[in-house]
Amino acid sequence: MKVHFQKVTIIGVGLIGGSLALAIKKGGLAGAVLGIGQETDQLEQAVTRGAIDTYTCEVSEGVEGVDLVVLATPVGMFESILRQVASKLPLGCIVTDVGSTKGRLVSQIEQMLPKTVFYVGGHPIAGKEKTGIESASMDLFRGARCILTPTPYTDAQALEKVKRLWREVGSEVVMMEPMEHDRIFAAISHLPHMAAYALVNTAMDLLNQDTDLLSFSAGGFKDFTRIAASSPEMWRDICLFNGENILTTIEAYEAVLKRIKEYIRNHNGRGLYLEFERAKKLREGIS
Amino acid sequence: MKVHFQKVTIIGVGLIGGSLALAIKKGGLAGAVLGIGQETDQLEQAVTRGAIDTYTCEVSEGVEGVDLVVLATPVGMFESILRQVASKLPLGCIVTDVGSTKGRLVSQIEQMLPKTVFYVGGHPIAGKEKTGIESASMDLFRGARCILTPTPYTDAQALEKVKRLWREVGSEVVMMEPMEHDRIFAAISHLPHMAAYALVNTAMDLLNQDTDLLSFSAGGFKDFTRIAASSPEMWRDICLFNGENILTTIEAYEAVLKRIKEYIRNHNGRGLYLEFERAKKLREGIS
Repeated sequence: MKVHFQKVTIIGVGLIGGSLALAIKKGGLAGAVLGIGQETDQLEQAVTRGAIDTYTCEVSEGVEGVDLVVLATPVGMFESILRQVASKLPLGCIVTDVGSTKGRLVSQIEQMLPKTVFYVGGHPIAGKEKTGIESASMDLFRGARCILTPTPYTDAQALEKVKRLWREVGSEVVMMEPMEHDRIFAAISHLPHMAAYALVNTAMDLLNQDTDLLSFSAGGFKDFTRIAASSPEMWRDICLFNGENILTTIEAYEAVLKRIKEYIRNHNGRGLYLEFERAKKLREGIS
Repeated sequence: MKVHFQKVTIIGVGLIGGSLALAIKKGGLAGAVLGIGQETDQLEQAVTRGAIDTYTCEVSEGVEGVDLVVLATPVGMFESILRQVASKLPLGCIVTDVGSTKGRLVSQIEQMLPKTVFYVGGHPIAGKEKTGIESASMDLFRGARCILTPTPYTDAQALEKVKRLWREVGSEVVMMEPMEHDRIFAAISHLPHMAAYALVNTAMDLLNQDTDLLSFSAGGFKDFTRIAASSPEMWRDICLFNGENILTTIEAYEAVLKRIKEYIRNHNGRGLYLEFERAKKLREGIS
């Protein structure tokens, strides 16, 4: 039997929140879905697309009678949102989120929520270089993975319900320890985004902002920097919430770049060859 | 009327050399095409695919009676190849290349070739993360650009003939000063490759070689590092021939990474936002 909620509130109806709302509505997983946001035109569009039934711009007004709240704004807004709603959440209500960081964020949320509501940390792995409800799709999570990060304070039944929700929208659910999540994602996602943002800005400085020259790059530059079009708000918040791990990864990255520079300076063809060959083999090993 | 050569010799029948050979043969642009290489199975495959008519593994035996020689090996091999063939090239024969660096390489080639043959430096901009004759295609250059880098020593008629060859295989020909070529490509191509190679090796170190974890990266890591599967030989040679420019670009890149680290350390959300927003706008401006 399908998991079913009476009333779901999605806070932040953008690409991820909007796609989840669509999947919940179209899948008949909730009696009603309410959206909370700041931009009325985005919320109106979400109603038109059938993602949400109603909306409000007042966070504190949107949680009455809900049994599931999904935090889907940039993670830096969670604290102020919870400050406004924590005391208004119905008894036994489940709170979950779709934030790209977990570790410290999960602890912070657990400290802010009363014992009378349940929290399950989540991170659906779905493409994010597009933003806004206009890019949302009920199939965004189909075939994707969703990471849930239970802690010793997580209620088993609430975890099971959130797990079933993600399975229902087509995702494979994977469990991860919150701190481990942040270490892994610093390496496979956060560092690549820092590298891509930095690369675009560096190349533009070197070319004196002459973007026409990029047309000579045979697609390589475009592919490589596609993720630099991701949301600046979201990535600012990820940096602030996973700063320590990200600093560690950037430093490891700088050490490899330094090694490559030394090979070049010393005309060390063998060193360069081995460095590149190692990367090629590792890259080709990614399924 | 189509440009036409009596006999063309392609030295290095891999992705680029093989694709050009195919396009020349299928387009009827030459009476005969001879391939020179080191791996007999690759050369046999090139014959089977109709890219070349005959082949030899002896560089010095392959240029008798030719009116066009195309250097299509990694650029680091050009010197030894030219040492073997320079004195055997027929009078009035045209030599061109498809190397990814030009500046210093072009000067070196001009110094090694006798006055009795013509040289035109070239760099077709075509995808290169696959290698070998098995990836070659007669359409590889269709709709792509090809850069030619004439110098004061370049013969106008030879330049015209090479230009017509590239147009005949479907490319748009663009002229560039050799040193300028290397500065531009350091920024838009060489730096991104260094960044991608370094990123793969860094991520793998951070994950203790557990490549399974990369499956959590939602395509971002894969897209971002696709170019790290490029040929190590080719990129070693590019680093050795365009080392100064590449060092300059890596240093500029490190400065941006350092700035991002400082923003993170100082919890400077505004600085991070502006850095990422700038990259997003620039990236979205690329057509």
